[in-house]
Amino acid sequence: MSRQTGHERGELALIRRLRDRLVPPRAAAGGVPFGDDMAELLPGAGEWLWTVDLLMDGVDFDSRRHEWRVIGRKAMAVNLSDCAAMGVQPVSALCAVCLSNRLSMDDAEALIAAADECGRRWNCPIVGGDTNSWDAPTVISITVAARPEADYQPIRRDGAQRGDRVWVSGKLGGSLLGRHLTFEPRVDLGITLARGLRPHAMIDISDGLALDLGRIMSASNVGVVLSESELAEVVHSDAERLALQDGQPASAHALHDGEDFELLIVLPPAVSETTARGLGLLPIGEVIAEPGLWQMGSHGDRTPIPLQGWEHFR
Amino acid sequence: MSRQTGHERGELALIRRLRDRLVPPRAAAGGVPFGDDMAELLPGAGEWLWTVDLLMDGVDFDSRRHEWRVIGRKAMAVNLSDCAAMGVQPVSALCAVCLSNRLSMDDAEALIAAADECGRRWNCPIVGGDTNSWDAPTVISITVAARPEADYQPIRRDGAQRGDRVWVSGKLGGSLLGRHLTFEPRVDLGITLARGLRPHAMIDISDGLALDLGRIMSASNVGVVLSESELAEVVHSDAERLALQDGQPASAHALHDGEDFELLIVLPPAVSETTARGLGLLPIGEVIAEPGLWQMGSHGDRTPIPLQGWEHFR
Repeated sequence: MSRQTGHERGELALIRRLRDRLVPPRAAAGGVPFGDDMAELLPGAGEWLWTVDLLMDGVDFDSRRHEWRVIGRKAMAVNLSDCAAMGVQPVSALCAVCLSNRLSMDDAEALIAAADECGRRWNCPIVGGDTNSWDAPTVISITVAARPEADYQPIRRDGAQRGDRVWVSGKLGGSLLGRHLTFEPRVDLGITLARGLRPHAMIDISDGLALDLGRIMSASNVGVVLSESELAEVVHSDAERLALQDGQPASAHALHDGEDFELLIVLPPAVSETTARGLGLLPIGEVIAEPGLWQMGSHGDRTPIPLQGWEHFR
Repeated sequence: MSRQTGHERGELALIRRLRDRLVPPRAAAGGVPFGDDMAELLPGAGEWLWTVDLLMDGVDFDSRRHEWRVIGRKAMAVNLSDCAAMGVQPVSALCAVCLSNRLSMDDAEALIAAADECGRRWNCPIVGGDTNSWDAPTVISITVAARPEADYQPIRRDGAQRGDRVWVSGKLGGSLLGRHLTFEPRVDLGITLARGLRPHAMIDISDGLALDLGRIMSASNVGVVLSESELAEVVHSDAERLALQDGQPASAHALHDGEDFELLIVLPPAVSETTARGLGLLPIGEVIAEPGLWQMGSHGDRTPIPLQGWEHFR
C-alpha cells in the first residue's frame, strides 16, 4: 500500500482499524485473537466459537449461471470451512437473506433449504434467521456456532514456530472453474488434526495460499519458505486449465487464486511425514524465523512471493 | 392473501414453508419454537439464544438522509430489542457487511464502530465479523448471542392464556418520523419483567402492534380484544403528526406502523395494575379464547382489526 496516498484502503486495512477500535485489551489478552477464522462467543470463556460469512450475487456467485441450491450450499459450506480451520464441531446456524424481488418463492426456498441440507450433513442445521427482500441483488449471510471437543483447544493462527512444516489438505488453484461452488468443507479432517496432531496453526484457504499463509505468518511473527518442487505437486489440474486460458503460470494460480477452501496446516516437526501423508496432507514448505514468504528452487535459491490474493473493499 | 392465485407469497408464507421443511419434529417438541424472536443455539439445551437482523440501504434506512453512525446504532439496537423480547441478557455480536463501493473508509468505520458502541452499552461488544464490498447498496447484518439469567426461562410467544392482560412498554405509531432510528432497546425492562413478573408471552413490536400481536395470538392459539379507550392512550404524538400529514387516523398508525420496538407483554391477571404501571407499562386489552383481534368500543361493541403491518418479500 502506498504511503503517499495517506488513505489506506481495503478490507485488511478496515479490519486493522476496527481491531484497534473495537477490541478491549482484556479480551485480546486471552483466548482466540480478533480476526481469526472464528471468534469466541463469550470472550475468554474458551467454549463456544462462532463465525459469519456473507455472499453477494455478482461477487461470490452469479445467479445468472449458478443454481440457487448450489449457491445456498456454498453459503453454508464457507462457514463450515471456517469451523474446519479451527478444528471444531459446527452445531447450528442462522441464515439472513435479502432476496432480490425477482426471485420466485421456489428459488428462495431452494436457496435456504440447500444451505440447511449442507449444514445437516455436518450436524449443523439452520435454527432461525431473517428474511428480507429488495430490488438489488440477493445477499445471503450465514452465522455458524461451533465448539471444540472436550479434550483440546481450537487451533488458532498464531502458533507457528521456526522449524514447523507447512502442509495443505489438497491441490490448489483454478477453483473458479467450479470447485469454489462444490468444495467439501474439511470439517472431519480439521477435527482429526486438532485432536490427533495438535497443529501449531491452521487456516482455510479462502483468499489464496499466499495471502492466507501471510495471515499465519503475521499472527505468528514468522516467515515461510515454500519448496518449488513441493509446490509443483499441489498445483490443481484446474489451475493448469485456467493457465492455458489466461496465460498466467499454473503455479501462480495455485499460490494466489481464492476459494480453494483446503486447509493450510502448520505441524510441529515431530509429526512424521508418513502420518501427515496418511491423512492426505501434502507438504509445501517450512517455517523460518525471519519474516517474509519465499520460494526456494532446486539450487537453494530464494525468491520472494508477493502476499497478494483476493481482498474486498479496494 | 388471495386464494385464487395459488401462489402464496410474502415473508410469512416463506417462513411457513421453511419451518415445515427445516425443523425436525424433535427440535420442535421442546425449547423455543422456530420463528420466535430468538432461536436456541443448541436446540433443546435451554442455554444460549441467538438472533440475526439484516438492514438494507433504501429499505430499513436511507444513507442519503441518515448518518452512518445512526444506521450502525440501529443495526445493533434491533437485535438488542429481540433480546429484550425474550427477557435475556445479550453477550456478544458478529457483524457482517457488504459496503457500497461509494462508502469512504471513515463511513465504513463509523457504521461498524457505532454498532459496537451501542452493543457495549448493553454489554454486547462486536467480537468478529465479515467485511465485503460491492457496487450495490450497503447491507449490514448483525448476529447477537444472549442467555437468560440463572433463575428463569426465556419468554416465548406461545404462552398467552384467556384472561391474561395485554400491555405495551410505551406509546406507538409514527416511528418513521425518526424514532425507528433512535429507539432505546428495552433490554433492562425485558429482563426485569422476565425475572419479576414471568410474562406468559412477550414480543417486540417491529412490524406493527396488530401484526406482532397476531404472532402471539397465532403461537398461543388465542384471540385478543383491545380496548378503544386504552388504545387511545398509547397513540404516540408522532402518530398524530403523521396522521395530519397523510390523512390516516392516528390510531391506525399506532396499530399498524412498524418499528416501534416497544415490548408487547402478556401478563397473568394476578399481576396488579399498580405493579405493571409502576414499570411504565400501559394496558391495551385482554386475551380471549376465541381467535381473532378485536377492538371494543365504550358500548361493548366489537369490530375486527386486520392483522396487517410491514412484511417483506411481497
